[in-house]
Amino acid sequence: MTAHEFPVRVCQAADASVAAQLLHDFNTEFATPTPPVGVLTERIAALVGRTDVDVLLAGDPAVAIAVITFRPSVWEPGPVALLEELYVRPALRSRGVGAAVLNYAMDSARARGVTTFEINVDEGDVDAQRFYRAHGFTEIEYPETGERAFYFHREL
Amino acid sequence: MTAHEFPVRVCQAADASVAAQLLHDFNTEFATPTPPVGVLTERIAALVGRTDVDVLLAGDPAVAIAVITFRPSVWEPGPVALLEELYVRPALRSRGVGAAVLNYAMDSARARGVTTFEINVDEGDVDAQRFYRAHGFTEIEYPETGERAFYFHREL
Repeated sequence: MTAHEFPVRVCQAADASVAAQLLHDFNTEFATPTPPVGVLTERIAALVGRTDVDVLLAGDPAVAIAVITFRPSVWEPGPVALLEELYVRPALRSRGVGAAVLNYAMDSARARGVTTFEINVDEGDVDAQRFYRAHGFTEIEYPETGERAFYFHREL
Repeated sequence: MTAHEFPVRVCQAADASVAAQLLHDFNTEFATPTPPVGVLTERIAALVGRTDVDVLLAGDPAVAIAVITFRPSVWEPGPVALLEELYVRPALRSRGVGAAVLNYAMDSARARGVTTFEINVDEGDVDAQRFYRAHGFTEIEYPETGERAFYFHREL
């Protein structure tokens, strides 16, 4: 099977529970606490149709999901895109499905006037870093020094 | 002078050119290319009143600015906040103005139901890292390993 057998599409309200199950399995695979599938289904359903988020699926039944948000910027005329999630079912990896989803996401972002596309990647996730570098991303903020940027966060 | 002399407030349409000048000076100080003040004024004016962004100023005339965006999340019931910019005029640093702006931003985010507040900080900007750690932020994603996350990006 190749990526062509899992065409990328925009998640519809009817897909919310399938999308939620993928997100749930994503967290479970990486031993991250996850809301129940029912809660995720409601959240996905609330996101479908919003203009500040893309939820993408690949295949039917879906075997991959991506969530991309768009937010306003003072530096650029268009919004900035952030890839929040990208998950491919383990049995279907290394076949180009993730690449197809990412390319669809970038095309969708371009169509919205996005000129900066962002992703936060864990330091130890060298496979993901290789994947994103192969797709034109870099963690280098200042090429002359090689300086990177860290993702800081806190709970409120 | 102390931070109390520069009360934090929400940027109004009439403040757009002052806010734009601060953002322009921010970039100029750090030798970053910047759009002209006129362009930034239009962008700020377009952001004022939007529900997915806070533009904050401190003092009148303003001596500090912060821009915070809010985007939907599948993992949390409320939006996620990202501190996009925080700038204090050089002559007024180390007086608590930045802390007052950041605290105002976090209070505003809490009032919107935000439970995760994020910031990307340059690797070499150890002063900023110290400032954010002192305000409860961490770059550690996984306390058991000390793993961080990197900010990746690409132009479209």
